[in-house]
Amino acid sequence: MDASTLQLIIPIAGVVAVLFAMYLARDVLARDTGTQAMQDVAGTIFEGAVAFIRRQYTTIAILAVVGAVGVGILIAAFETKDVADTDVFGTELGIRTGIAFLVGAVCSMASGIIGMFISVRSNVRTAAAARRSLVEAVQVAMRGGAVSGFLVVSLSLLGVYGMFVAFGGLNPETVRQAPFLIVGYGFGASFVALFAQLGGGIYTKAADVGSDLVGKVEKGIPEDDPRNAGVVADLVGDNVGDCAGRGADLFESTAAENIGAMILGVGAFVIAQAAGWPNPSAWIFFPLVVRAFGLLATIVAIFFVRGSETENPMNMLNRGYWVTTLLSVVGLGITTYVMMNTNGAIGDFLKLPTWMYFFAAGIVGLATSVAFVYITQFYTAGSYRPVREIAEASKTGPATNIISGTAVGFETTFVTAITIGVALFASHWLGGQAGLVSADGRNVGGIFGTAVATMGMLMTTAYILAMDTFGPITDNAGGIAEFSRAEKGAREITDRLDAVGNTTKALTKGYAIASASLAAFLLFSAYIDKVNLILARQGKPLMESVNLANVDVFIAALIAAMLVYFFSSLAIRAVGTTAQSIIVEVRRQFREMPGIMDYSQRPDYARVVDITTKAALRQMVAPGLVAVATPVIVGLLLGYEAVAGMLMVGTIAGVMLATVLNNGGGAWDNAKKYIESGHLKDADGNVLGKGSDAHAAAVVGDTVGDPFKDTAGPSLHVLVKLLATITLVLAPLFIR
Amino acid sequence: MDASTLQLIIPIAGVVAVLFAMYLARDVLARDTGTQAMQDVAGTIFEGAVAFIRRQYTTIAILAVVGAVGVGILIAAFETKDVADTDVFGTELGIRTGIAFLVGAVCSMASGIIGMFISVRSNVRTAAAARRSLVEAVQVAMRGGAVSGFLVVSLSLLGVYGMFVAFGGLNPETVRQAPFLIVGYGFGASFVALFAQLGGGIYTKAADVGSDLVGKVEKGIPEDDPRNAGVVADLVGDNVGDCAGRGADLFESTAAENIGAMILGVGAFVIAQAAGWPNPSAWIFFPLVVRAFGLLATIVAIFFVRGSETENPMNMLNRGYWVTTLLSVVGLGITTYVMMNTNGAIGDFLKLPTWMYFFAAGIVGLATSVAFVYITQFYTAGSYRPVREIAEASKTGPATNIISGTAVGFETTFVTAITIGVALFASHWLGGQAGLVSADGRNVGGIFGTAVATMGMLMTTAYILAMDTFGPITDNAGGIAEFSRAEKGAREITDRLDAVGNTTKALTKGYAIASASLAAFLLFSAYIDKVNLILARQGKPLMESVNLANVDVFIAALIAAMLVYFFSSLAIRAVGTTAQSIIVEVRRQFREMPGIMDYSQRPDYARVVDITTKAALRQMVAPGLVAVATPVIVGLLLGYEAVAGMLMVGTIAGVMLATVLNNGGGAWDNAKKYIESGHLKDADGNVLGKGSDAHAAAVVGDTVGDPFKDTAGPSLHVLVKLLATITLVLAPLFIR
Repeated sequence: MDASTLQLIIPIAGVVAVLFAMYLARDVLARDTGTQAMQDVAGTIFEGAVAFIRRQYTTIAILAVVGAVGVGILIAAFETKDVADTDVFGTELGIRTGIAFLVGAVCSMASGIIGMFISVRSNVRTAAAARRSLVEAVQVAMRGGAVSGFLVVSLSLLGVYGMFVAFGGLNPETVRQAPFLIVGYGFGASFVALFAQLGGGIYTKAADVGSDLVGKVEKGIPEDDPRNAGVVADLVGDNVGDCAGRGADLFESTAAENIGAMILGVGAFVIAQAAGWPNPSAWIFFPLVVRAFGLLATIVAIFFVRGSETENPMNMLNRGYWVTTLLSVVGLGITTYVMMNTNGAIGDFLKLPTWMYFFAAGIVGLATSVAFVYITQFYTAGSYRPVREIAEASKTGPATNIISGTAVGFETTFVTAITIGVALFASHWLGGQAGLVSADGRNVGGIFGTAVATMGMLMTTAYILAMDTFGPITDNAGGIAEFSRAEKGAREITDRLDAVGNTTKALTKGYAIASASLAAFLLFSAYIDKVNLILARQGKPLMESVNLANVDVFIAALIAAMLVYFFSSLAIRAVGTTAQSIIVEVRRQFREMPGIMDYSQRPDYARVVDITTKAALRQMVAPGLVAVATPVIVGLLLGYEAVAGMLMVGTIAGVMLATVLNNGGGAWDNAKKYIESGHLKDADGNVLGKGSDAHAAAVVGDTVGDPFKDTAGPSLHVLVKLLATITLVLAPLFIR
Repeated sequence: MDASTLQLIIPIAGVVAVLFAMYLARDVLARDTGTQAMQDVAGTIFEGAVAFIRRQYTTIAILAVVGAVGVGILIAAFETKDVADTDVFGTELGIRTGIAFLVGAVCSMASGIIGMFISVRSNVRTAAAARRSLVEAVQVAMRGGAVSGFLVVSLSLLGVYGMFVAFGGLNPETVRQAPFLIVGYGFGASFVALFAQLGGGIYTKAADVGSDLVGKVEKGIPEDDPRNAGVVADLVGDNVGDCAGRGADLFESTAAENIGAMILGVGAFVIAQAAGWPNPSAWIFFPLVVRAFGLLATIVAIFFVRGSETENPMNMLNRGYWVTTLLSVVGLGITTYVMMNTNGAIGDFLKLPTWMYFFAAGIVGLATSVAFVYITQFYTAGSYRPVREIAEASKTGPATNIISGTAVGFETTFVTAITIGVALFASHWLGGQAGLVSADGRNVGGIFGTAVATMGMLMTTAYILAMDTFGPITDNAGGIAEFSRAEKGAREITDRLDAVGNTTKALTKGYAIASASLAAFLLFSAYIDKVNLILARQGKPLMESVNLANVDVFIAALIAAMLVYFFSSLAIRAVGTTAQSIIVEVRRQFREMPGIMDYSQRPDYARVVDITTKAALRQMVAPGLVAVATPVIVGLLLGYEAVAGMLMVGTIAGVMLATVLNNGGGAWDNAKKYIESGHLKDADGNVLGKGSDAHAAAVVGDTVGDPFKDTAGPSLHVLVKLLATITLVLAPLFIR
């Protein structure tokens, strides 16, 4: 097959995935919605979610329009300075960048909104299915989650492809500059992701902490009790944080990292063209084709999520994951073989054809994603040493629980950094052996190898995201079952699914971190390419290195390392502030509506949802602005080389802190569950379960971990990628 | 005055400071030792401290000998490779480096041991003085602390000067290479500091947490109650952590940063020699002269620590601090004026004489140290917003206390990073304007400016260290007063001093962090100078930049950012493990010696001290080895440029994490004290004091903060500086 024929798979797979998502949505929506009581509470959750979505996305849309116009004007103003009149820049580039930004923002919002709508309708259907069958419940939740997964990845793919085609990507004359023209798309996606993740993350944990503190602690009623006015906000929160937030996060990953890989593909394109290899532009299209194969692999895999009623649901999900991974290997093989046609040119090590080195690099990426799935399980699942250690430490009270959890969180950076380091080293080395050397002796294979590894890793994104959204759907299903006082059998099934959902949510965060760090190096290289393009046009000397021995670079690096802490501080504090408004309102309802406690009065759930929504949106502004403004200020004050240092060190620092917060939080959560499941015993062999002092200590750790793992940690992923897209787009501003 | 005459102040001030320390020691030791009960408990503390010192320093001495021999052999083996036979290297350099390492290690150990001896004898005299007068108690504690301060700084100064002279520093022919020959001294000091701080930090917090958990939590007896077998270990711990640990930390700072500044002085020396300026070697001696003036300023300042009985003791200490600072400015002016004689050559900005730019850079350093003193006070003292915020959050339980404290800890990185960034930028800019340009157009003034700023900052080290050791002395005095059931008046005074001591301990940590970060840039530059010296000798191309876009450098940077978390995780876990052995022993004594509770039996304090000592020393090995081995492994695998990246990013990441741990821990501690002082009120205006739920929540935060601020945080300072000295010494190994 010829590379240009294979390229057709991009729009085809994109459209097929959208159609498949629609099929799944129809399949889920056609299912039984359970008892009247279930439908009632599900309806309330649905209303709350819609209210949040409406308000949040209105705010984000306004911010996005302001962002698009601002970015367009800045680019138009700065790119006209000292510039010869070739290619696209000045006002035209400003307009194109603004449009790309807006399209990226709209696609991201669309996939978030639609995914959320399906998610908050799948929850009750999962609860209803749980009354009949475990397998059916798993399938409903997974299919509902897959709607999000497919929409996020296919809209990202179609958007990037569409912008690319619109900006001259099919024309051999202009294909070289097209990737640089669409970076605004990635920035738009990052911008939406930042606010979606921050707003959702603040909402979900504020609702959780706020309603628990009044309900469980002050009034002594159980979690998810219908008398607690905050309980619906809590259930809505699961969706807006895990579903909409993580969806936007991975939408951004797939968009920004695709564009970065395409920019690096330009280097390979130049070499392929000079060497007379067939179809040189295939090197630029390559990332999109790989992504398309990943979508097709996931479609097949969805049908493998099945099993027996007695099987552990995690095994069913893992089966689908392995099908996705293996089919991705096949897709990767086809793509590298067809698209990296070098007319018989061979590489250095073992003298193999060029494509084989990149195939191997892609497998390194896939293997990294598998490794992270298991690493995260080790650190956050109850059966292994770290969680047991925290549970044991809970025996001597909350202080030792927190100290132990912190030590575990810190420890997880070790295997994370080593795995990423090995993956980077291996993929860079493999690429460097492939023989992609330019006429002036520049070997671009190494960096392209890391890009291929990143693309390989991202092939499974749709499946991972489906598993992630499985989390809030089953969490909600459990809440609905509890709330509607469903049969014991159904509640047992939803409890099992909920535990699995906790694991899949943790996995996705590990995956998002790994992809962000692998991608960092490729986006960083794309930034250098872009800066050099501008410098060359302005007749200035190129940036040969990002020199840490330069004091400006060092200061920028210092500020970057600070930024990740400061941003997290703002995010964590935002949860506390928002929770306070919920506490005040829930207390007020208990006081002014005395009938709530004996079920004679229905609490005003909607009002709490409304207050939480408003407060969360208000609170997301400060960290959001800090994230956007810091790189711009540093760039304007210290210049483009310093920004490169900030980008790199910010990524490293952000990835490490996110690892600590996500895994620490996950381990605390599961240490509490470990105790609740009766695994912890005292010196005499008595079980220390729910109600024991050890359990109370573990609850403290769980509460502390909540804003770490669901607000600050995931927001840091987005921050790291935003640093990359913002600097990529605004590079012209930093060149004086 | 001529520069070579002024140089004589180095040995003179060093010796004078040693004599003054002896005078202070005699003065303190001659004082009243209080009641028999006081002397009894003080004697027990003294015995415990001696036992710890003996065992710890025996271990460290063995490790140091192994280290010295290992370093010597490695240098001898690697430096003989591909090397022409000029200057000093090969076996001779190996031997010299080994000797320098050993001398550095011995001086550091000596100052630690002697300082500790005085400190554990000042405590009872402070308690005795408190029976008569607040002012006298302040003076006894401050003078006892000053013995440590003077010994640390003067032994460091005399050691560096002695090695420098011994290795040809007075000979104009060899003065250029002498600074490079003494880097082993700094490495030896770092090596001792690492284990002294780790061992001391683990001991002090394990004893604190362990004895509290059995005594306060399980048995319900007060803190520092004589019936608790762990209480003496706790009091011993205050000395070994804060006094010996921080002393070794700042010994290392003054030694390593002096040597780094002298290496950078070589660049200025070359320019001065070529330009025919008088006395070019003054540029190399400059850092030592500045340090000597700092010692003299501190001697004067000690006599200004006085005041009235009703005055806040913190004001008395601050008075001395300001005297030190102002006299340091004068000393700095004299030194720059006399030693930077450029024969009328002037700088760029405002066309001033060269010395004025460096004088200004030195003032930037002094101002930075003042700024950190106040920043730390804001974040950790009870009267400001951060601590109040944590106290307020304690009302809703331990979880919100921890979340709030974490947010505060994270927040403190902001002002820290900005202050350091501004100081670096300003001193680099000032230096760059000074006109220190080499024949080939290299401006070495900028980096020398940052070196002068670091030297300026370190001028007040002796005073800061005296204030730091004031902390454990007054803490012990309080414990002795409590333990010996002293009069109420005396206990009120020791309580006030104890609170002041908490603040001064926190200040020292802020100061240590700031000096580590300012110094990072200068040590980094010294590393580059040294690597280029070797590369030039081997006829290889020089290292022009440390390129973050190089994948090896990126991986090393990632590992560096990981290292600071992983190291902290090991340190924090070590506290938990050691505390467990204490808990077991104290429980055993309560069980097997039933007479303890009714005072009819005396607990076996010495046994707990012994067990804690052994456990702490065993636990310090793992983090210590990780710290030493990681840079060596990275250097051998990824090369000298990657090591530079590791050094830089490791410093940034370490400084930020240490800031979080130190300030977060300090704020938690003081939030508890804020509540104990009755400042927290509920909605109805009732005081929530000791015994309230809010207080219990604050105690959790305080316990969590203990290993953060007294074990992991301070150990990170040492780690950061160890990275610098280890890479500086072992650079030849990383060049292939």
